Amino acid sequence: MNAISDPYSDAAVQLPFPYLLFLGDTAEPGFAKTAFGVRDWAADKCVGEFAVGAKVTTGLPVMTPAEAYAAGARAILIGVANRGGVIASNWIVPLVEALEAGLDIISGMHVRLGDVPELAEAAAKHGRRLIDVRVPPAGLPVGTGRKRTGKRLLAVGTDCALGKKYTALALAAAFAERGVDVDFRATGQTGIMIAGGGIPMDAVVSDFEAGAAEVLSPDATPDHWDVIEGQGSLFHPAYAAVSLGLLHGSQPDVIVVCHQPGRETMLGLPDHAVPSIEETIELNLRMGRRTNPAIRCGGIAFNTSGMGAAAADALMEAESKRLGLPVADPIRRGAAFEALVDSCLK
Amino acid sequence: MNAISDPYSDAAVQLPFPYLLFLGDTAEPGFAKTAFGVRDWAADKCVGEFAVGAKVTTGLPVMTPAEAYAAGARAILIGVANRGGVIASNWIVPLVEALEAGLDIISGMHVRLGDVPELAEAAAKHGRRLIDVRVPPAGLPVGTGRKRTGKRLLAVGTDCALGKKYTALALAAAFAERGVDVDFRATGQTGIMIAGGGIPMDAVVSDFEAGAAEVLSPDATPDHWDVIEGQGSLFHPAYAAVSLGLLHGSQPDVIVVCHQPGRETMLGLPDHAVPSIEETIELNLRMGRRTNPAIRCGGIAFNTSGMGAAAADALMEAESKRLGLPVADPIRRGAAFEALVDSCLK
Repeated sequence: MNAISDPYSDAAVQLPFPYLLFLGDTAEPGFAKTAFGVRDWAADKCVGEFAVGAKVTTGLPVMTPAEAYAAGARAILIGVANRGGVIASNWIVPLVEALEAGLDIISGMHVRLGDVPELAEAAAKHGRRLIDVRVPPAGLPVGTGRKRTGKRLLAVGTDCALGKKYTALALAAAFAERGVDVDFRATGQTGIMIAGGGIPMDAVVSDFEAGAAEVLSPDATPDHWDVIEGQGSLFHPAYAAVSLGLLHGSQPDVIVVCHQPGRETMLGLPDHAVPSIEETIELNLRMGRRTNPAIRCGGIAFNTSGMGAAAADALMEAESKRLGLPVADPIRRGAAFEALVDSCLK
Repeated sequence: MNAISDPYSDAAVQLPFPYLLFLGDTAEPGFAKTAFGVRDWAADKCVGEFAVGAKVTTGLPVMTPAEAYAAGARAILIGVANRGGVIASNWIVPLVEALEAGLDIISGMHVRLGDVPELAEAAAKHGRRLIDVRVPPAGLPVGTGRKRTGKRLLAVGTDCALGKKYTALALAAAFAERGVDVDFRATGQTGIMIAGGGIPMDAVVSDFEAGAAEVLSPDATPDHWDVIEGQGSLFHPAYAAVSLGLLHGSQPDVIVVCHQPGRETMLGLPDHAVPSIEETIELNLRMGRRTNPAIRCGGIAFNTSGMGAAAADALMEAESKRLGLPVADPIRRGAAFEALVDSCLK
């Protein structure tokens, strides 16, 4: 899908692909979310899967690293996590095998690949790269606030972890299906693996946060859209700095507010209520005007994964009437989602 | 002054003192601003000055590193900058002499002390520390939003570089003069040198920005005040992420808005107007309520350094009437400043 495979700005992280997805010895699907996300959203970047006794599968062809390299793969992507988020000791031999076969290693884990001595040694020996997507690129600039050419959409949220990445991916795909020239711009580790590049905004030093967002969505042709993955929430007591730097630097023409009906308190903070959708629209527009006076809200993306279809549809219809904006679930799609896309592009 | 010498939270940077102020070969007073600031605000932490052909002086006793060590000094503090912000080659011999004499080195320069091979070698040989105050402490946590005990004041601004540090120092000193139990909490390099500790908030990774501010002003007794140095502005397109993380994590009871009359555009950004004082109050209170619903504005600090006394007084009186809040210049002091202190403490 061209929506998520175009080359990035030179200053952003760029990943080698196609990928061989590594599943380790993972027994539970929940720990393979990254692999499933990359398979679902970047199928064109995946040649196969490789495991050492895993009980989950992506359904992609099973290949050794050497077979994958012969099939075009240029990196093995660690698509799983385990409790503790470390490189398990029984992953080391197969990962060294991948380096020997000519593949770089891509990881979104907290531990740095280069801190595993066997991997550091094998990578040096074979001239391969160990790429930690949590590590931002060097040399990020301070923001300038300069208005860039092209159009931008930013997914924002009432809270963290309620579907901003999924919403941005779905909107970028829908834009592309309508023939719009569009790039998905990734700001978190899974998004970066899907896009093949991006900047892990939560790992950027605060002074450069807005500047990093400026680098992420560079000048473009007037009809080009960047659909930017959001992070955090302006209302989250821990992560609002990330959200505000991303908002200022993205200078979006359109925001889409992501929300999970029924979530009452902020992620991990039971004493802090989730803000209303109206408050979230208003505050994001107000602060976003600082770098783009023409900012507007394109609509609302609901994560209704915990609801039945009829109840979700009824709620979204009622909320759409109440707010005077399209409200849609990007997973359920349908006419409401098309209306949201219309509103964003109008 | 006890207002700025109390011990810090363990997680914040802590500096060894008293200091020997190093002036290098500086010819222009403008390049010795750090030394003058530390002398003015942390006289109790300074034993003398040391230079290699400088044409400026702090007026403190001139001492060799060995004499300063004998007089109690525990660190030599680089109190000057040069064009380029580097450790000049003719500073290296005297700095090595200081390490040999038993002093650690404290620097706020961009270049890291440990990247100068002669300094790294001498520090290792003599068991001394090379302390870069621009480097945040390791292990900063993610914010929790938990309400802490004690009272907090945060200096905020319509823009950068208009007197937030000076305002916070002056308010902390005034609180102390009234017998209030108070700590100045430093968030930038010069402030950290003055306080003997703190966190360089602009150098903290965004995900930990609010958490760093929480660490900086820990739980305290109910009548204790932390007066926190502000950074940036919520309205600055490059630095607002720093300001918002600091606001959320500081959870101030009182803000004081710092402003420079006559400044029309944001520092370095001629296309971005400076916001009004009212907007700045309103947005800081609105966002600050997220972590402290009782937040209020104690008044306004004007930087009237570019105005005559009569004009400044007339303007501050008029602005005070217009805004219904005390407006004072913390350098000019006087009755208006006392009214500002009253309002903050009431």
